[in-house]
Amino acid sequence: MLSEAILAERTRNMSANAIREILKVVSKPGMISLAGGIPAPDSFPMEIIQELNGRVMHKYASSAFQYDRTEGFEPLCEALSVYLQKKMIHADSDEIVITSGSQGALMALGMILVSKGDFVAVEAPTYLGALTALNPFEPKYVQIATDDDGILPDSLDGILKKHPVKFIYLNPTFQNPTGRSLSLARRQAVADIVRRTQTLLVEDDPYSDLRYRGAALPPIKTLAPGQVVYVGSLSKIFAPGLRIGYAVAPEPIRRWMVLAKQGIDLHTSTFNQALAAEYLFGGYLDKHLPEIIRLYKPRQEAMLASLGRHFPPGFRWSKPEGGMFIWVEGPKNLDAEAVYHLAVEKGVAFVPGKFFFTDPNAGKETMRLNYTMSDGLTLDKAVKTLSQVVAPFGSKAAS
Amino acid sequence: MLSEAILAERTRNMSANAIREILKVVSKPGMISLAGGIPAPDSFPMEIIQELNGRVMHKYASSAFQYDRTEGFEPLCEALSVYLQKKMIHADSDEIVITSGSQGALMALGMILVSKGDFVAVEAPTYLGALTALNPFEPKYVQIATDDDGILPDSLDGILKKHPVKFIYLNPTFQNPTGRSLSLARRQAVADIVRRTQTLLVEDDPYSDLRYRGAALPPIKTLAPGQVVYVGSLSKIFAPGLRIGYAVAPEPIRRWMVLAKQGIDLHTSTFNQALAAEYLFGGYLDKHLPEIIRLYKPRQEAMLASLGRHFPPGFRWSKPEGGMFIWVEGPKNLDAEAVYHLAVEKGVAFVPGKFFFTDPNAGKETMRLNYTMSDGLTLDKAVKTLSQVVAPFGSKAAS
Repeated sequence: MLSEAILAERTRNMSANAIREILKVVSKPGMISLAGGIPAPDSFPMEIIQELNGRVMHKYASSAFQYDRTEGFEPLCEALSVYLQKKMIHADSDEIVITSGSQGALMALGMILVSKGDFVAVEAPTYLGALTALNPFEPKYVQIATDDDGILPDSLDGILKKHPVKFIYLNPTFQNPTGRSLSLARRQAVADIVRRTQTLLVEDDPYSDLRYRGAALPPIKTLAPGQVVYVGSLSKIFAPGLRIGYAVAPEPIRRWMVLAKQGIDLHTSTFNQALAAEYLFGGYLDKHLPEIIRLYKPRQEAMLASLGRHFPPGFRWSKPEGGMFIWVEGPKNLDAEAVYHLAVEKGVAFVPGKFFFTDPNAGKETMRLNYTMSDGLTLDKAVKTLSQVVAPFGSKAAS
Repeated sequence: MLSEAILAERTRNMSANAIREILKVVSKPGMISLAGGIPAPDSFPMEIIQELNGRVMHKYASSAFQYDRTEGFEPLCEALSVYLQKKMIHADSDEIVITSGSQGALMALGMILVSKGDFVAVEAPTYLGALTALNPFEPKYVQIATDDDGILPDSLDGILKKHPVKFIYLNPTFQNPTGRSLSLARRQAVADIVRRTQTLLVEDDPYSDLRYRGAALPPIKTLAPGQVVYVGSLSKIFAPGLRIGYAVAPEPIRRWMVLAKQGIDLHTSTFNQALAAEYLFGGYLDKHLPEIIRLYKPRQEAMLASLGRHFPPGFRWSKPEGGMFIWVEGPKNLDAEAVYHLAVEKGVAFVPGKFFFTDPNAGKETMRLNYTMSDGLTLDKAVKTLSQVVAPFGSKAAS
């Protein structure tokens, strides 16, 4: 019997992603889950995928099943180069690295950039999957203060003055977990800061295409292209099970990401990259994206309305213009983890917000609610149940 | 402009996989490549894949495109559990971790096991992709001496007495790069050693199904199950572009591999895992594997015959019973890298063997030849050309 003494020192820093553990618990029948961060299966373009299968078999034949470049399948790199132009990101296909989900991009970045004890600046709260990717490399996290408009540029500025930060990690549009977006003015301020301080920024942007109202915001990549690694994903606009992510990275970062990826997985599935290339090239995304939005927009509206209808005073929540999440902040005395256990007993699951903070004492009164997996009526029922569980914590004004 | 100063310390240990760089050079038209380590595209079961596409869409529908367990798609874990029984490996489906190619398994193992300076024992020569996966974690490699029957148990024993080895990495059947197989007696000796010394052994076995003659050898996993992580791949018996690998690992290794994989890529493509599950479950592998062997066996025989016909005295080569490679050893004064450049000028590429040794001074007189990518006539032409290039290095007896 092998003992845990065989493990590397870094392995102590790896712990199960709390959300994935929660998701195992909540998959039992009858549970209404607001816990997932996953797209609705009925958002997947199943008929289109049938068609893409045929196109790929015909167009690429056996080459879609052969080993391929670590950098990525060339037609997909080209298709993404065109797709990104609509976001005003001008990237040649050879500036793009395809990764196995955006997780694969974050892993490669952690691997090439982070030595033990290096500082990485993250939002408070931040995306948990990024921490899972970076933790094996043993960084020290510093938290950037945030409000309803995303990070406070002054907080970032202060942190960069105080610590030699290796890079900043932001999810500035419809953030996971809060749904919040960094305002245009702050994007410009952040771009100024990273240019002035020559700091690397990793901009993780899986949700920006899921916009239900309001005007598009420019990626920070467009404002400081030489300082930003832009990380994207097709998981929310095509299908997550295909594991297609990508990064647009300035040199020398791009080159080293490719070297790291040789060790990580050699390359991402050629077949899935070919399906993705045809999805973009064939105009299927343009056709299908409005369908996804048509599915999610009323769900988000239903949840926002339900929160307004049922939740007691003393609670506030984000009102995102898109994405997959709403962030609820309760009164300071709220123990959202206790609420989670009570809610699961009543058949409703969500993720306590504390898991999204690198400071173990932060965010105890917060909750992440996902609305993509259920219809409006189900969401209303779930929010009503939740409101009953949290009622005792509402402010005095409620009674 | 970002400078390389931003890179982590470990990144200096990452270098481009020499073979992948060579493969870029040799992809030009007219080149006969013996350099690849890749399956022939006509070995891919294209008609079966068509059928599998339909089966997966019908049987699993949208769940084949959704996020899935980090451990692996359950039907594939079950199918592999049955498949492995034929190799006398008895693994429940929950002892199996699906990875993105065997590369993904080696990466997860390196991540959880190797601290900087830890000793890892490898064959001399060894599989380059394993070094690419482990290098970021900065191990010290110790080379186990080998002969025509694989590693010398006495050499391994001596190394384990001298160094605190974290694990041993072996590719004991139709090894990449030599094509050699560890004999049954040595498998038993190695199993005894790892059991006695309680050392972990990583047994990488991508080629054993490609057997052209002789009797199957038991995986070392069957002889010391508690000490061996068995790593497998469907790349050579299905399609490499689907990136399906797997590991059967004793606890606590398996559990920690799953945690590492959460950070590496969350999970392997659900769709591709579903295709693989149906390939195994539907009896397609049993039907298709003889086709692959029917394709490769005459190619290997042609290359062995050509070597005998054309190569000068002073050269010897492996005569493997299967796999994808033949290993040529020239006289001590042979500079195989110089031969490589001369051969490429004449339209033939191969991989100089020195790249497969962790000792930078070893293997200068060796060459790895692949025979899966060309028919017998083409292989004969290539070997004849090579023989002309190496002729000046042949022993005196030749002239």
